[in-house]
Amino acid sequence: MIPKYISLKNKLNNDILENKYPIGSKLPTEVELAKEYKVSRSTVRQALDLLVEQGIIDKHWGSGNTVIAKSDNSKSKTVMVLLPNNKDAVFTDVFSDISSMLMKNGFEVEFHSTQNSYQLERQYLQLLMNDIYAGLIIMMARSNFPSTNVDLLQLQCKRQLPIVFIGTAPSAIYNPVIISTDNYGRGYQMARHLINRGHKKLGGIFVNDNYSSIQAFSGFTDAIRDANLEIIDNSYHFCNYHDPQGVNSRTNAGINRFLKYAYDTVSAVYVDDSNITGDGTFPIFTSSLTPSKSLGKECANAIIEIKKNGNSKSVTIPFKAN
Amino acid sequence: MIPKYISLKNKLNNDILENKYPIGSKLPTEVELAKEYKVSRSTVRQALDLLVEQGIIDKHWGSGNTVIAKSDNSKSKTVMVLLPNNKDAVFTDVFSDISSMLMKNGFEVEFHSTQNSYQLERQYLQLLMNDIYAGLIIMMARSNFPSTNVDLLQLQCKRQLPIVFIGTAPSAIYNPVIISTDNYGRGYQMARHLINRGHKKLGGIFVNDNYSSIQAFSGFTDAIRDANLEIIDNSYHFCNYHDPQGVNSRTNAGINRFLKYAYDTVSAVYVDDSNITGDGTFPIFTSSLTPSKSLGKECANAIIEIKKNGNSKSVTIPFKAN
Repeated sequence: MIPKYISLKNKLNNDILENKYPIGSKLPTEVELAKEYKVSRSTVRQALDLLVEQGIIDKHWGSGNTVIAKSDNSKSKTVMVLLPNNKDAVFTDVFSDISSMLMKNGFEVEFHSTQNSYQLERQYLQLLMNDIYAGLIIMMARSNFPSTNVDLLQLQCKRQLPIVFIGTAPSAIYNPVIISTDNYGRGYQMARHLINRGHKKLGGIFVNDNYSSIQAFSGFTDAIRDANLEIIDNSYHFCNYHDPQGVNSRTNAGINRFLKYAYDTVSAVYVDDSNITGDGTFPIFTSSLTPSKSLGKECANAIIEIKKNGNSKSVTIPFKAN
Repeated sequence: MIPKYISLKNKLNNDILENKYPIGSKLPTEVELAKEYKVSRSTVRQALDLLVEQGIIDKHWGSGNTVIAKSDNSKSKTVMVLLPNNKDAVFTDVFSDISSMLMKNGFEVEFHSTQNSYQLERQYLQLLMNDIYAGLIIMMARSNFPSTNVDLLQLQCKRQLPIVFIGTAPSAIYNPVIISTDNYGRGYQMARHLINRGHKKLGGIFVNDNYSSIQAFSGFTDAIRDANLEIIDNSYHFCNYHDPQGVNSRTNAGINRFLKYAYDTVSAVYVDDSNITGDGTFPIFTSSLTPSKSLGKECANAIIEIKKNGNSKSVTIPFKAN
């Protein structure tokens, strides 16, 4: 026989699924529920505790029980993966490693590309609110700028969803698990490499709304300084991941105009984004380093670890020369 | 009679001033100094302790004494002020308030404009190395990006120079004193103001290498979210403080191209930099808020407080509506 409180919990869950109690609304009080479902208050309390445990409601002493999620348990083995891009080779590699590792461990994977857009990211995070997922692996949109979607992530933390951040996490997230490549090291090694080949004046193009690229910039300029060479402001260009409407500072024409001026001063311009090429009139230098471990596998492992032990370590993966 | 160790300290200081021991070089060992200047080792030790205290040498057990500064004490009452700009009304106000407050308290003020350039900032910080100043008030160049000059600031921290940061400090500086306006609040209040006037779709232009402007962006978008309105990615443009060579995303033509597209979607574009205007074809909204206290006076007070008590509180100054 199913205990009374389990059967009540299932009834309540069903009512929530059928929008009798929509997300964001408050459940009736314990007394009211006991009356409505013809059970004792202690049965109500046990059922509510289960719903809290499953992340369906949020219980605050004195302020009632708020519905924060719905679940028919259909997503309970699914990990959502949010990456900025579904075409770039770097991201398809990360995604395929995440998928193969998670599927080997009995999970399903649901992938969405945020296109580095706050709006799209928000839509997918709202999708995540509608069900109980097994976890979330996310590279934040515009990671060098403040996130406009921290509120939804904080709600997921409250729901105890295992979350793994790629690269960096918003500062408002407490004790995040972050899996990252050593982007500072990438920049540092690239500058050393160019200096070792005889270049004394370096420039660069970095992506200003991408945290990892700004970390690479930091490594790049530290290596120049450590070699007692000069950091020449005018030889650096920071462009957005996507150009804003009408601005086009990432077009070949825009990049070429910059390179034309930069090469009046420097002998090598490092470009920290393989999608930026210019039209080939001026040389650019890109990184040929590869991560010494698979970023995707480390992310999948971290999710599995959190499911198992409640927590996981953050990891920074060094690059190796090819 | 001058004690032997004071007279030895003055001799050593003089030798350092006259480049017998240049900055970065090591002094002879205690034994060698005792022999050369015909004094006891304990006199040498006392003289060296004084030089450490005055920030002239850096003493590391086992690795000798490195010359890190020169001083004829001519700058001992001078505070260096480094601001990005010497023309913008905001900065001239800050500087004039710093100056009047410091001069009332018996200090001299030496002002330099870094033009938001890493290179110029470095030149002035190197100037600061040549002497013992009373303090430094600095708004970092490109404050939303990693500083390339943290090494020199860390050296000044080691020399116990009182430093006050305006807006933000590099994360590598331990326990910095930061005087800031409430930039998040500025953005939040501006969005509320526009929403209260009936605007439902907002856009904005912010400065991507300026920490305070990115904080304002965070407040702006949080206010939109808190009003249950949508944050529309394409209606935001992040430009640099200075355009890189050939890129010109801050020119009137560039701004107008962006505004043309943005006004297909939104009804108001907030611009967080009074120097960005466009050509007037499209309306822009700028902040008319003013700080409720003088940023410059708070900076000067913090320097005075550090000189007196060894430390001072960080302060965030709220804005008030005009």
